[in-house]
Amino acid sequence: MDTTQPSGILSPALTAFTDRLEIDTERTVAHFQWLLGYGCDALVVFGTTSEANSLSVEERTSFLERAVSAGIDPEKLLPGTGCCSLPDSLALTKHAVGLGCTGVLMLPPFYYKAVSDEGMFRYFANLIERVGDARLRIYLYHIPPISQVPISLAVVERLTAEFSGIVVGIKDSSGDWEHTRQVIERFAPSGFRVFPGSELHLLPALRAGGKGCISAFANINPALLQKVFQNWQGPEADTLQQETERQGRTLRKYPVIPALKAILAEFRKDPGWENIRPPLVPLSSPQREALLADLAAAGFEW
Amino acid sequence: MDTTQPSGILSPALTAFTDRLEIDTERTVAHFQWLLGYGCDALVVFGTTSEANSLSVEERTSFLERAVSAGIDPEKLLPGTGCCSLPDSLALTKHAVGLGCTGVLMLPPFYYKAVSDEGMFRYFANLIERVGDARLRIYLYHIPPISQVPISLAVVERLTAEFSGIVVGIKDSSGDWEHTRQVIERFAPSGFRVFPGSELHLLPALRAGGKGCISAFANINPALLQKVFQNWQGPEADTLQQETERQGRTLRKYPVIPALKAILAEFRKDPGWENIRPPLVPLSSPQREALLADLAAAGFEW
Repeated sequence: MDTTQPSGILSPALTAFTDRLEIDTERTVAHFQWLLGYGCDALVVFGTTSEANSLSVEERTSFLERAVSAGIDPEKLLPGTGCCSLPDSLALTKHAVGLGCTGVLMLPPFYYKAVSDEGMFRYFANLIERVGDARLRIYLYHIPPISQVPISLAVVERLTAEFSGIVVGIKDSSGDWEHTRQVIERFAPSGFRVFPGSELHLLPALRAGGKGCISAFANINPALLQKVFQNWQGPEADTLQQETERQGRTLRKYPVIPALKAILAEFRKDPGWENIRPPLVPLSSPQREALLADLAAAGFEW
Repeated sequence: MDTTQPSGILSPALTAFTDRLEIDTERTVAHFQWLLGYGCDALVVFGTTSEANSLSVEERTSFLERAVSAGIDPEKLLPGTGCCSLPDSLALTKHAVGLGCTGVLMLPPFYYKAVSDEGMFRYFANLIERVGDARLRIYLYHIPPISQVPISLAVVERLTAEFSGIVVGIKDSSGDWEHTRQVIERFAPSGFRVFPGSELHLLPALRAGGKGCISAFANINPALLQKVFQNWQGPEADTLQQETERQGRTLRKYPVIPALKAILAEFRKDPGWENIRPPLVPLSSPQREALLADLAAAGFEW
């Protein structure tokens, strides 16, 4: 078993942009430090919530280097490296491994739809062979509500069998607890690390044998999630999970990425945090006010 | 009116790969020459059928340069340049304009789903402003069955109003004739160039005021489509369209991209044409045999 692999609370960390919509390294790295200091065990850089898919390969690699230079421990990082094309995924993955990142989170290639299991397997197999580095640790990123391309249980089975020790875990953002439960039941006993992609399933996942969660909500309240993680076997576990769900469901009533950015802008008194790359747009003023009122009513405190 | 803009039969041209799955420039350029010699009026390089989304930005720009150096007239080219990220789309679009390509075909950013019209508009507006070149001609690429992200009629309306002379046309691959009919009815009268993304709607589109079609099927029988285009007002139009539909529907019973590659491999006696990047996979032998028999029965001749 690989003891360097993360457990607990991971945040797909938001990316800050300047007014010209370039990555704002300083603001973003400061957010990473805050997350790691206030409850996150590790960070997914370039997840869906990070607007990874609105960034170029070059923007991703150079930002990652700057973040590590600025003192972010690469062992706390799981960069997203899955793109539509094999060469882009390969470039990002090699780069992350080279920087010493603890693992990578890989979207399936998500342009072509109704892809066969065979094609999906070949894509990952081809990538692993071309990276050709024993340090590689892949977390599969199953997020059919957005990618529209699932990674089937049959593909997980085949990849973990063929690349045991390399394909080590999954972020299950299906939003379907029954699916997450099945993944844990089937693969966790052999050491596969399962993280639901939502705080709503944090406690159930821990009880079933999952390792924690990777949740957008962790961008604004990592401390609460960390409390659930620390106390999951204790008497307060259900109460803490209920509190988490109340706040998490409130956030999810709004477009999540702009909503998170609006919350950071508000509480850090830094309106620049609302900058977001199209096709996403910031919340409208009425949305922002409603969100802040709703969150306060749900017990959220900064 | 812009007389340099293409009409008639356009093929989203297949990309050939070597056994190592690198772009095979020679084979691909030879295919382009064949297409232009046998019925295509222009080519979409890097469309869905070209496996564009399985290529990196660098692979696309350097191949395009090689194709132009090899003698392919850039005025006959509409490269696909729409990616998930604005910087990638910007780099490809600037490059295509710089090479003298007659226009570009742009997918919407297709990772984030349920994007607002406002966000979609801003994405294109931002891109057009940053390209900042009066030669830019954009064809919108509406292909919700694959992208899962539509370009709504409201966005088309706003873009054509704000960027008249730049946003000049659309490839409508909705597969829904009623949608294509509406697009033509609403926008063609002011010069907007509408191409259905399927040969199945070629004749109806021409009769309604469309400009031709951009069809994967053109990769194997551009001559037949050109006959429809040449004769659409003549007495044989319906018969030719029926023949087109018979062959087109037969092709569409199979996974289209591997099927087209299998057909080229067969008739050019060049098995390397079947090379395809994962997550796509070649047809199985039984599929290939069935396809060739079905096509022959539908009247297809090489």
